[in-house]
Parts: sequence; C-alpha cells; structure tokens
Amino acid sequence: MKQMFNVSNAHRVKSSISNLPVRLLLGPGPSNLHPRVNQQLSTHMIGYTDQNYYKVMDETMEMMRYLFQTNNHFTIPITGAGTAAMEACVANLIEPGDNVVCCVSGYFSDRIYQMAQRYGANILKVDRKWGTWFSLDDVRDALVKHKPSLLTMVFGETSTGVKQAMAGIGQLCKEHNCLLMVDTVAALGGVPFFVDDWKVDACYTGGQKCLSGPPGISPITFSPLACAKIANRKTPVANWYLDAMLLGGYWCPEYNFANGTVTTPQPLRRYHHTTPANLVYALRESILMICEEGIENTWNRHQDAAKSLYKGLESIGLKPYLADTNEVFDQGGRLFSLTTVAVPDGLDAKLVMKYLLDKYNIEIAGGLGELAGKVWRVGLMGFNANQTNVKLLISALEEAVKASK
Amino acid sequence: MKQMFNVSNAHRVKSSISNLPVRLLLGPGPSNLHPRVNQQLSTHMIGYTDQNYYKVMDETMEMMRYLFQTNNHFTIPITGAGTAAMEACVANLIEPGDNVVCCVSGYFSDRIYQMAQRYGANILKVDRKWGTWFSLDDVRDALVKHKPSLLTMVFGETSTGVKQAMAGIGQLCKEHNCLLMVDTVAALGGVPFFVDDWKVDACYTGGQKCLSGPPGISPITFSPLACAKIANRKTPVANWYLDAMLLGGYWCPEYNFANGTVTTPQPLRRYHHTTPANLVYALRESILMICEEGIENTWNRHQDAAKSLYKGLESIGLKPYLADTNEVFDQGGRLFSLTTVAVPDGLDAKLVMKYLLDKYNIEIAGGLGELAGKVWRVGLMGFNANQTNVKLLISALEEAVKASK
Repeated sequence: MKQMFNVSNAHRVKSSISNLPVRLLLGPGPSNLHPRVNQQLSTHMIGYTDQNYYKVMDETMEMMRYLFQTNNHFTIPITGAGTAAMEACVANLIEPGDNVVCCVSGYFSDRIYQMAQRYGANILKVDRKWGTWFSLDDVRDALVKHKPSLLTMVFGETSTGVKQAMAGIGQLCKEHNCLLMVDTVAALGGVPFFVDDWKVDACYTGGQKCLSGPPGISPITFSPLACAKIANRKTPVANWYLDAMLLGGYWCPEYNFANGTVTTPQPLRRYHHTTPANLVYALRESILMICEEGIENTWNRHQDAAKSLYKGLESIGLKPYLADTNEVFDQGGRLFSLTTVAVPDGLDAKLVMKYLLDKYNIEIAGGLGELAGKVWRVGLMGFNANQTNVKLLISALEEAVKASK
Repeated sequence: MKQMFNVSNAHRVKSSISNLPVRLLLGPGPSNLHPRVNQQLSTHMIGYTDQNYYKVMDETMEMMRYLFQTNNHFTIPITGAGTAAMEACVANLIEPGDNVVCCVSGYFSDRIYQMAQRYGANILKVDRKWGTWFSLDDVRDALVKHKPSLLTMVFGETSTGVKQAMAGIGQLCKEHNCLLMVDTVAALGGVPFFVDDWKVDACYTGGQKCLSGPPGISPITFSPLACAKIANRKTPVANWYLDAMLLGGYWCPEYNFANGTVTTPQPLRRYHHTTPANLVYALRESILMICEEGIENTWNRHQDAAKSLYKGLESIGLKPYLADTNEVFDQGGRLFSLTTVAVPDGLDAKLVMKYLLDKYNIEIAGGLGELAGKVWRVGLMGFNANQTNVKLLISALEEAVKASK
C-alpha cells in the first residue's frame, strides 16, 4: 500500500549547472588536481571496516610520515578542511587556563589565536607586522615572559607569502618545556619542512595546496610529547569529532598515547566516524607522487618555479611584495609556493584579476586583511609548480596590467 | 643553486595498493555511489571565490531544502562526516549550563549525549531500551521535569533499525519553548521526513547513506528559531570550524540570524574555509537525482525494497529483529532504509558476514553495543534500495546461513 504524502515541491530543482569553466588555479589554493589524483576520487567505494580499506589507511599514514619527515606514530588525515586540522591541534593541546603564546603576523596565525581563545587559553599574543616573521629572540622573550605550555606559529603564511624561520625554535621550546604547533597548510610538500629535526610537536596541512589533492581532507601529526599531554589531560577534549584519542582508536589503535608504545598484535579498530574513502584514495595518490618524485626534488621544483616567477615579474616591471631575502631553507623569507606580488600604485588589483579570469581562465587572488588591494597572491603549488605555468602567467599578466591602466 | 637536504626515506612508499575488491555495500553505510554521482567527484576543480562555484553552492542549498522539506534559509553542507554535522548542532545550540534533554535508545543517540556533556550542558538523559522509541508521554514528562532549551533525538537509529515516532513531538517542544534537534543520518532521502511540518529546529544527515553520495560532506538545516538562539548566545560557540554564523557568512551572507530576514543585494561572501568542491559536486548530483525521481517516489522505492526484504527473510527462515509495527510514516516502527535482522540462536553472526563478503563481495554489518552478535544490519539505501539487490542478498544469505551452521 502506497502512503500519500504532502510533499512541497517549492525547492525541487530539476536541472543542474554543468558548464563550469576550466580554470588554471594559480591563487593560494585550491590548486588544480593532478589527473592521476582526480581519477582516484572516483575509485569505487568500500566499507570503513573492510580489511582492504585498512591497508589503504595504513599505507596513507606511512606516506604522510614521509611527507612530514617524521616518525610520529599518530599521523592521520582529518576529515575536514585545513581549518579543522588547525582546530584539532588547538582543541587537543589546550586545556582551559593553559598559558599559550600565539605568534601572529598574518590572517591564519590570527585565526589560530581566535580559536585558542574559544578553548579558554590564557593567551599572550605576540603581534608582528604582516609580511614579517618571528626571530629567535621574539620566541625566547615570549617563552620567558609567559611560561606557555603551547606556542603556535604559521610556517607558510598564505596571506603574506612569508616563510617563518624555523632554525632553533623547536629546541628553544623544548628547553622551556613548551609544545610547538606549526601550520604548514600552504607549504608542506612544496617547501622543505622537517617535523622531527625541527622538534615540532603538532603540525598539519591541507589536501588542496602543495599536494594537488582535494580539499576536505587534512593531514596532521602529533609528536609523542603532544600525545602524552593529551593522554594526561584533566578535562575531556571540548570537541568530540576532533578528539585525537578517539580518532586514534580507529586509525592506530595499537598506539598508546600515554607512553608512546605500540601494541602487537594490533587491537581491534574502534569506529569513530565514516572516513571519506574517495578523499583518502586521492590524498594517497597525491603523496605517492611525491614519494615517486622524491620530496627534495618536489621542493626544488617549487623553488625553480618561484625563481622563474620572480625573474618574469621583473621582466614586465613588477616585483614580489617581500624584499629578496636569505633563501636558506630554515631561515625566514619568501615562501616559494605562494608569492605576494606588489600592485603598482594607481592600478586596480581587481581589474587585473578579472582580466586574467575572463580572458584566460587564470585565477590569481587578491590580498587579505592589511594587504587588501596592495598585493596579488600567486600560488605555484604541487602539480601547478612548473615552468609552463610561469611562462603563461607572466605573458598574460603583462597584457592584463597594460589593459587595466 | 640547489640546496642539500637531509631527507629521511624511512617512510617513503613506492607503490600503492590498487586492487580494491568491488563490494556491494548493504551495511549501514557507506552505500555504493550511483555512477552519476561517482563521476561528479572528478569534475574539474574550481576556486572557492569563483562566481560559477557560487551558483553551484546556491543550487545545492536549494536542493537540500527540498530534501529536508523545509524553507529554512540556513541549509548548508558541513565539510565533514555526519558526526561533524551532529557536533555543529550541539556546539551552536548549547551554551554552558543550558538544560538539555537527550533521548537515548541506541548508539547514535548516546553519541549526542556524550557530545552535549562536553559542551557543558545540564543534561537529563532519558534512557529507553535499545530497539524501542520514545512516546509523546516520554517527551512531555521530560519537558515538564527538566524545562530544557533543547531536546535531542535520533529519527533513524542505525544501531537498532528503529524509526522514531515524530507525530506531535515538534508541537509539544514548541509549547514548552524548547528547540528540537533530530538526527536523520540513516534515513533522510529514504524515509519520509518533514522538517517544517514536524517543527524540527535542527536536522542533519550524511552524504553516504540514503543519498548514495560520498562520505565527508553532511547536509544540515537550522530553523529561524534555532538561528535566533545562536544569534543571541551570551558566549561564543566553543567550536570555530563549526560556528554556524561564520559558516553562514560564506554560504548565505544575505541571511540575518537574529531576525530571519534576507538582505538584497547579497553582501560579499566572507571566506571561512576551503569547501570541498568535489564533494559538493557529488552531493548536488545525488540530490538532483532525488529531485528528478520525486522524493515521494524515492521513499516508496525504499519502502518496497524493505518489504521485499522482510518477505525474503521469512522465506529463508529469518526475520527482522523488530516486531512488525504500524507503518504509518510519522509513527514509530521499523526503519525502511536499515533493517536489523535477528541472528538465529547458536549461529555465529560473523561467520555469515565473512561468507557473504569472501564469496560474493556483499557487505552487511553486525550489531553494535547491546546488539552485538544478536543482529545483522542490512542497509538498502539510496541507489542500493532496489529489488535486484534484495533478490541477490536473500539468495546469498540463505547459502551463507546453511554454510555457517
């Protein structure tokens, strides 16, 4: 017997928009997916308790350790945007009343600060001008003054194109008994970063930047020290979905957060949420491609593309917003994966962007916050970090600037 | 000049597992994606500030209103699992010290209860035996006794196969000035549900159940009353990533949470996080297919498949775990999209599941919590809710049960 229903058709859409333009995505992300990665997205679905899926998970975790350059056992993908991975760090590593230092010199370092406030931290916010980075003295002063249990910073600041100097920072934090949390969303896979050598305790990235992977899945890693801090919390993590020990119960139940040991045989995996298999397939493929290329070669490819971009800009009368600086990988300076380009006086930044988009289907982005109208943001990330794209962009940009004067 | 790096190759994986079996997913989800949906996953990427993407977003939101049978303006997809959507409701609608009633009679209603505790609610937990649902009297008693600002329940409980009776519940909550939050993860799109007619204030589902869509994206809707409660909070939402007003600033900046009005022209969208375009494409396609079929026909298809399953089970000496009950759509009873099947005494439930998986690549699930070992869980959801799958399952199940005795 069919039942009769009083269904409203008010919002029943009968056709869908399908003529999406094909863009070259040279903004701060998402970047274009590599065709191999794109193909993996539509691999057939499998259950989240399937032994075959477990193997995919384990392999993905192992590849992420290579990507992060870490031996951390707790190295998993978060089901959500890079901001969810950021929140996973903040939620798990902060207890109400904890002293925290937030180093803020851009849009995303400020986001960490805003989040940390919601988790009840007692925060010392160290502000620096957008477009600069923090020195060892800055960090030492904050550690001495505030005695934090956590210090947060952004390694590759998408809003300014700045790479944070990392040399010595982790060691300094260790000496002050402070965990170090670093955002590498716009950098990891494109710019040298060493979680273990640099003594970083919590680190994360997004799928859609230097990995040429999809947005919606975000690798994260916690050091044994960070895991022990979590295991010894006096209060529950104020976020169920991002609770690291619950996530670990599914991804790596063999790992003991309290003492860092690994149980054999592996205990049963405990269900937490249905992980996005399609995104996991794609993330795995994107990191596999880095494993194949060799991550030092991937870094050098990003560097080469960025340097060609700098030269190209000069050739058409433009220049990066940031001064040319020391390019040593653990020193501060320009971020090779994301370049802020100075908008010449009197030019409408938006007009140029619109020209590139409308005439050539090339997307670059404008400035955020303090830098709105002052810079364009050009990303050469992952698959997109190549000489062909630089050649095209410089040529199109020259025309766009002329047409917009 | 190339720099030299001290790269560790300890975790460098050089090949990846690619021979995933092709499963028929007849458990509690994920279900198989429809080929049209699967194809959409690998549609080319587009930027999150692209006008063309905004059109896709708007269309997806409009379709979701049809799916939820609501006029709620705030109807968006959460970037995360169904559990993230659950947490979005809890985080936004609860302030510390709020009185909350949690109706618990299964695994997922208990999860809501656990989450609500973390947000500092003063909770009255109303427990009922797993496999039952709540009566109007149960709800009235709790409302009178606890005077809550929020009452939570699960409409389609994946762990027990129970459909909660909805007739009169929303009205009762309104009379007691209480918001009603309902989980429809295992039901929406497969079983009649009416957000507006049933006066539900917060409702969510997952992509991977009755929508045949991908996991990792989860539709959610808030009534104007729920939005006003959020706008009038005294404390910030304790979760930055899932903060509804920040999410609204990107998805629907024209909506005023405080008074439910809509501004024309639409204000600029404010960036919150990079939404997963591939998942949005796929979600849109999955709901478009329901728009095409007509949702009442989709519901009836699920009902027909379930009834064939009941008959088929009987024909091989098995039966649903729940007694045959009133099948009127707003009364409690069996959930058509997910059936718990009683495991005959003396039979090893896992052996049967293993047989189906190994010999026929058919996945069904076992019981959770109180029902572990006592039931199998069979999902006929979305694309998978058809007579062909029932025919196959019954035939294979008959053989599997015989072989496992």
